[in-house]
Amino acid sequence: MSCVVTFTREYGSGGRIVAKMLSEQLGIPFYDREIIKYTAEKSGFTEEFVREAEEKKTASLLYSLYMTSLPVSDQIFLAQSQVIQEIARQGSCVIVGNCADYILRDERNCLNVFIYAPLNERIARVRDEYKDISEDIRTYVLKQDKKRITYYNYFTQNKWGHSHNYHLSINSALGLETCVDITAKAAIAMGVKGE
Amino acid sequence: MSCVVTFTREYGSGGRIVAKMLSEQLGIPFYDREIIKYTAEKSGFTEEFVREAEEKKTASLLYSLYMTSLPVSDQIFLAQSQVIQEIARQGSCVIVGNCADYILRDERNCLNVFIYAPLNERIARVRDEYKDISEDIRTYVLKQDKKRITYYNYFTQNKWGHSHNYHLSINSALGLETCVDITAKAAIAMGVKGE
Repeated sequence: MSCVVTFTREYGSGGRIVAKMLSEQLGIPFYDREIIKYTAEKSGFTEEFVREAEEKKTASLLYSLYMTSLPVSDQIFLAQSQVIQEIARQGSCVIVGNCADYILRDERNCLNVFIYAPLNERIARVRDEYKDISEDIRTYVLKQDKKRITYYNYFTQNKWGHSHNYHLSINSALGLETCVDITAKAAIAMGVKGE
Repeated sequence: MSCVVTFTREYGSGGRIVAKMLSEQLGIPFYDREIIKYTAEKSGFTEEFVREAEEKKTASLLYSLYMTSLPVSDQIFLAQSQVIQEIARQGSCVIVGNCADYILRDERNCLNVFIYAPLNERIARVRDEYKDISEDIRTYVLKQDKKRITYYNYFTQNKWGHSHNYHLSINSALGLETCVDITAKAAIAMGVKGE
């Protein structure tokens, strides 16, 4: 049986690394930035425009009221939703970010995982591993949190970080290897099979 | 190294069974109703009074303003906190409920687990396994939820069900055995050792 594992992760939690390691351990495809590429192809916007739309504030209510067609951010989200649904139909895989947990909410063979960590641990990881940040790292991490939370809460009916959105929420302070082991156990229980 | 595993669980999620199975698998003591007994001994109230205090609404602000001493519910919570801290000092164990995750928030060797499940699955479990409920089961489960949430949010600084309170939140729809396996992996990673 196939199983799609979606990862939602706090900035600096190491969630992307966990997702990548899991896909290698299970021998199934990994989708992260590819989704932006496919969304660009589907929507007709450039990759850069799609990436920026995800990072900008979502459209204001006033803006939506005056627009006669769907706001651009909503058009992109729609194209992205179709891309994610097509990927999920192809068999077991790991998908990072992009509200995939919400987009695939009606799929029965989906394991939704949330990776988070205490703020101090995330700041330390960003300081050690992300070299090109010029501003204060704490402020930068909090800004990234805000972007992700705003985006997720705008496009889904869920509240970011609430356990009920996911099958499994793991504090990565337990160690990235432990996060991978735990998620693999749950994925195997759900019947994941590598290609 | 010792490790205290605390369980917070939604009513009907099977969290208590998971906790009991984990304690047996790891060979460490299990504390649930014993805490009420010890709290009664410490506070001078009867076991029944302690149990009822946990289930009743916490003291109103108006009541607190007119009382010269600590409200009874707060006195009981204080005694219960001391009991839990004493238990934790004795070595690895499993503690169910009683806001133990919050009471032990400054302990480094603590693994806090939240077990939950979709409402429909919890209603089904309660219908199958709890025989002595006379009222509508859905209403009954929602009432139990409300009691636990009110109690937890009143006595802690946390919001019930938010991932950040715990190291691990698991949807028991994954299966109780899987919940036990996952928690055991995390406890072993934290260095738990049976007696």
